[in-house]
This record gives sequence, C-alpha cells and structure tokens, in this order.
Amino acid sequence: MAEIPMELIKKLREMSGAGMMDCKHALEEAEGDLDKAFTILREKGMAKASKRAGRATGQGVVEAYLHRLSEDFPPQVGVLVEVNCETDFVAKGEDFRKLAKELALQIAGFEPRWVSREDVPDAVLVEERNVYQAKAEQDGKPPQVIPKIVEGQVEQFLKQNCLLEQAYFREPKHTVQEIIAEHISKLQENITVRRFARFNVREA
Amino acid sequence: MAEIPMELIKKLREMSGAGMMDCKHALEEAEGDLDKAFTILREKGMAKASKRAGRATGQGVVEAYLHRLSEDFPPQVGVLVEVNCETDFVAKGEDFRKLAKELALQIAGFEPRWVSREDVPDAVLVEERNVYQAKAEQDGKPPQVIPKIVEGQVEQFLKQNCLLEQAYFREPKHTVQEIIAEHISKLQENITVRRFARFNVREA
Repeated sequence: MAEIPMELIKKLREMSGAGMMDCKHALEEAEGDLDKAFTILREKGMAKASKRAGRATGQGVVEAYLHRLSEDFPPQVGVLVEVNCETDFVAKGEDFRKLAKELALQIAGFEPRWVSREDVPDAVLVEERNVYQAKAEQDGKPPQVIPKIVEGQVEQFLKQNCLLEQAYFREPKHTVQEIIAEHISKLQENITVRRFARFNVREA
Repeated sequence: MAEIPMELIKKLREMSGAGMMDCKHALEEAEGDLDKAFTILREKGMAKASKRAGRATGQGVVEAYLHRLSEDFPPQVGVLVEVNCETDFVAKGEDFRKLAKELALQIAGFEPRWVSREDVPDAVLVEERNVYQAKAEQDGKPPQVIPKIVEGQVEQFLKQNCLLEQAYFREPKHTVQEIIAEHISKLQENITVRRFARFNVREA
C-alpha cells in the first residue's frame, strides 16, 4: 500500500497522544483514513476520547459580552465570540482584542445567525426562497420579474443574518467584513471569526 | 373542522405579531399546525421571520466566564451559560446569579459536552459502545462479563461529559445536579440549565 505521509502521522499523534509507530500502523490499517485510524487506536486503548478535541488550529481570543436591560436586572442576553489570528503576538495586542469586543457588541445588538453566507444551511435558503416566491405571486407581481424580486430578498436576508455582511453598528456605511479587513491590513495577519454563540433568555 | 384552541391562536400571535383573526384563519387553513400557519402568515406578508425566535420561555440569566492562561495573554477559553427559573423575582436575586457563575466556572474547567444525558446524540453512544466493546474483546475479557464492562464505561462517559452529572468542582462529593437541587429547594422555584457554549482557541 501507499506510504503514509508524515504529516498525517503527526496529526494523528497530536489527536491521540499515541506513539509515532502506533500512529503509522493504525493509519496503514485504516488505509490513510484519519478518523478510522483514531478509532483503531482507541480500540487498542492507545488513545483517549478527550484528546480528540485537542488539535491546535492557530491563535486567537475568546471574548464575551453580557447585556443588561436595566441595572437591577441580571443579564438577559449574552454573547461569546472566538476570533482567530496567526500569531500570539497579534493575539496579545490590544487592537485585536478590541476588535473581538466590538464583534461581541455587534452580535448582541444585531442578532446575526451565522458568521458568513457559506454557513447558512441550504434548507433555510430554500424555505426563504419559497416564502418570497409565494408572497410575490400573491402580490400579483408579473411572473417575469419574480425571480429578480426573490433573489433580491434572499440577498437582503443574507445581509441581515450573516455577521460579516451586516452593517457595522458604529459605521453603518461599512460592513463588519470591511472592519475586519482594515485590521488585517493594519496588523498584517489574517483574521477570521471562527464562531459565536448568542443566548437570549426571552427567546425560544 | 375542529375549533382552534385559543391558546394556539395566542401562541401564533406572539410568534408572528399578526392580528388574532388572521392567526385564527391561518391556523384553520393549516389544520392546527402551528409552523405551517406561521409560514402561511409569512407568505401573506403578515409575519416577520425575525419574530419567530421571539417566544417567551420563562425567566433567567445569561452568565459568562473568560479564562486567561496568564495575565499578559488574552482569554483563550470562554463559556456562556443560560440558567432559567420561573419568576423575575428569583432571576434578580444574588443567589441565582451566583449559581449561574458557578456553573460557568464548572463548564470552563470540566468541559462537559452536553447539559444532561438526554442531550447526548444516539450516534455518539453507539460509537462509544463499539469502542468499549472492541477494547474489552481485545483485552480478552470473558464474553459473559463484556456487556457489564461496556455499560459501566458508558455510564462513566456520561458522568464525565454531562454537566448535570459531573462532580461539582468545589464539593466533588456532590453532583452539579445536586447543587442545583439545593437551590431549587432554597429558592422554592424550578431551575434549569437551558444551554451553554464553551469555546477554546486551542481546540479543533
């Protein structure tokens, strides 16, 4: 069988904490399938389940924001956001952390549901399209303009619900993506929003 | 057709912001199916998508905790947790919020993956069982004791990975669920952990 690339062996080692040779053999047995090889190591008692989530993916910061409706009330809305960069030098800098805080505020106030349009599930887009289509038909729009109306509304939906496409709350002429791009060019390092969570006690 | 219950009409009204009669008609058209009725209202332009997430589900608080590895480093681990109760009287109390903060610390330190064992996906349990089974077979355990070994390990897995079953970090003799139960009896109100998120920059 084909040689197992050293990179893959190292990756499995990082995931499992098992020795290099054990990782190599497991990968050979799994014909290069990383997940399968990991399961083989686990079955042999050479890897721990908890290690699976331990792969390093870069540098960054986790930031939070809690929103109070009034002073005598505990926070009813909370946001957690993870922003990644390339080096700990940038991660430690004040500008970077400030950006993460701004993003947490943006998420708290403007309720995006996804980071970028690539994250929107197809099923959601299909449902939105169906709704806009039915609405346009019911409003008696001419059939030939309906596709354009529907696409315009889908675009609108994405701009409202994807963090990177939202208008930045402090400078609504710029999108959040543009603000991040400014930081990328200033800090000379790629910056990505990896994930966020937004909890609101008042929402289902 | 059967009479639409007033409760359902009110629910749709809350979800959609549409008028009572419009909600009633939509529910009749949808034969009592709430989601379908909501879509009907949307198609008629009588409901907004953003309203869907607006249903009240009780009182509570959102709490966060950010963990720093050292003082000159920004937080690399963050936790967001929502804890629910029945009245805003309890939600406003110091004891309740303190509990939420303790839970955030617990989640940061002990990395649960789910709130309770009911939240663990079946596929995860099946995989865990398979791994324990293969390991026990490979270790040459007698076939008649293997089911017991496997079930013991699944139980262990659940206790490690479900927040409510974890040992409470300040009093490891008690589970988190027991600490919550203490608060329930003290505050005389049901308390539930609705959801949490835990982000770690260092983890895949």
